[in-house]
Amino acid sequence: MPEVDPAQLSSEGLDTLLGVRTVRASADEVVLEYDIDHRHRQPYGIVHGGMHCLVVESACSIGAGFFARQSGKSVVGVENHTSFIRAVRSGRVTVTATPITRGRRSQVWEATSRDSAGVTLSTGRVRLLCLDADAELAGETVGQRG
Amino acid sequence: MPEVDPAQLSSEGLDTLLGVRTVRASADEVVLEYDIDHRHRQPYGIVHGGMHCLVVESACSIGAGFFARQSGKSVVGVENHTSFIRAVRSGRVTVTATPITRGRRSQVWEATSRDSAGVTLSTGRVRLLCLDADAELAGETVGQRG
Amino acid sequence: MPEVDPAQLSSEGLDTLLGVRTVRASADEVVLEYDIDHRHRQPYGIVHGGMHCLVVESACSIGAGFFARQSGKSVVGVENHTSFIRAVRSGRVTVTATPITRGRRSQVWEATSRDSAGVTLSTGRVRLLCLDADAELAGETVGQRG
Amino acid sequence: MPEVDPAQLSSEGLDTLLGVRTVRASADEVVLEYDIDHRHRQPYGIVHGGMHCLVVESACSIGAGFFARQSGKSVVGVENHTSFIRAVRSGRVTVTATPITRGRRSQVWEATSRDSAGVTLSTGRVRLLCLDADAELAGETVGQRG
Repeated sequence: MPEVDPAQLSSEGLDTLLGVRTVRASADEVVLEYDIDHRHRQPYGIVHGGMHCLVVESACSIGAGFFARQSGKSVVGVENHTSFIRAVRSGRVTVTATPITRGRRSQVWEATSRDSAGVTLSTGRVRLLCLDADAELAGETVGQRG
Repeated sequence: MPEVDPAQLSSEGLDTLLGVRTVRASADEVVLEYDIDHRHRQPYGIVHGGMHCLVVESACSIGAGFFARQSGKSVVGVENHTSFIRAVRSGRVTVTATPITRGRRSQVWEATSRDSAGVTLSTGRVRLLCLDADAELAGETVGQRG
Repeated sequence: MPEVDPAQLSSEGLDTLLGVRTVRASADEVVLEYDIDHRHRQPYGIVHGGMHCLVVESACSIGAGFFARQSGKSVVGVENHTSFIRAVRSGRVTVTATPITRGRRSQVWEATSRDSAGVTLSTGRVRLLCLDADAELAGETVGQRG
Repeated sequence: MPEVDPAQLSSEGLDTLLGVRTVRASADEVVLEYDIDHRHRQPYGIVHGGMHCLVVESACSIGAGFFARQSGKSVVGVENHTSFIRAVRSGRVTVTATPITRGRRSQVWEATSRDSAGVTLSTGRVRLLCLDADAELAGETVGQRG
């Protein structure tokens, strides 16, 4: 699978704001990472559950988007289910996404966040619908991501 | 149910960074809001699915925390399942969370994001475990949120 | 919304085997019911979690199917997320499903099981894809349900 | 991990009714199987989504129960999230469950159903709470499963 220049991805918006970097990305696997700081925590001082959901969403969407573009389509996430496995306060988090199914109508991807020792912190699954490139989404034509 | 001074909540961390404000909060209902800007979008220009998950997580956790503190306990979210209903690019989003069950061992809350016309954008559910106030979480004692 | 003769639904297969009856069904609401007996329990003697998931799936699918047929389409469930709220050993269970969104591409329905006193036992959500009537599913053309 | 006599498990209730057999079971892995027949289908003639949820629930609960009993505890499932990957009409289905986390307070297990060619049909995750053996559930003391 062709890989994209990571600099092209996540160049704006929520991922960038939160310091989430794309290590590598293809239609077969996506790896993101971030270093925990004050931006990612909830009031208890641990990483916010929403942060775990967010990186699951980003990683799965990037991978599914790569696959969809191979046939001129795009994707939109519709369901995100994330399980929080282990609370964490600091360190580097690596998020790895792989496909469970990549169909014509929809895809399911799974992403797992691990700390630098490889311990699972959270894991989630995202269902994405495949859209024609000219499909409308929130009043505008869906463009090509990245 | 006693309400807390909203200024005490969300005073740091991810919610603050993303401009998520607590409109009101009690053990029976939590209302958050934010105005969509560049911080909340993914590369297509619509609100990031992870943002929808994040406000579900925040709203449900705040409400469940209120209830738990009434008996000297705290909570930790373990599962977040969020459905994306309608893509959105701008405007004010209001997030309302209410309890489905509030037991001794665990709670389930539901939160729905709506636009200023009341149209549902996303909706999710969070399961939270109830912890004794002196329970350990990521190597430290769980404190009282807020 | 036109209602269908309940006798036409659930006339075979898993729902019938488990004694799940269709009380009423339309594109706006579906109500099923069953009386708990030995068929529905797991080894602890409480209703099997899978039974709770199953009636969520049935109720949501029936309602979504009604809506889809109005435009000559059919549906197939893709995600089922069910939360177990209260264990139960006996009595009548009523399952009510209502739509969260009914789009051209997909639908989300929610179903809740309650005991005869109206206490919530479980609640879940199902995402369904809308298919053209001539779409292929497991090697055969999708027919019209019911 | 010690294995149990499969004949002791699933000796009654929903799994037995549906012909779900325990191939092997321990605190580390559970394998179930069933041969698709009229009992498992919904009106389209494919395996009912609820059937996929049900075997996920059974397989994960059996495994988590084994682990919990090692420390004199039992478990109760609280969330089941199942993704349907590929529709199927006939053949043998093998369901394999493995743990994602096995803590003192809760466990998360994952189970995947595959056809005889190893193709994934569905996959789901279950969160289970760990209970003391004398905890009350639906008005009775929780016994030891199996």
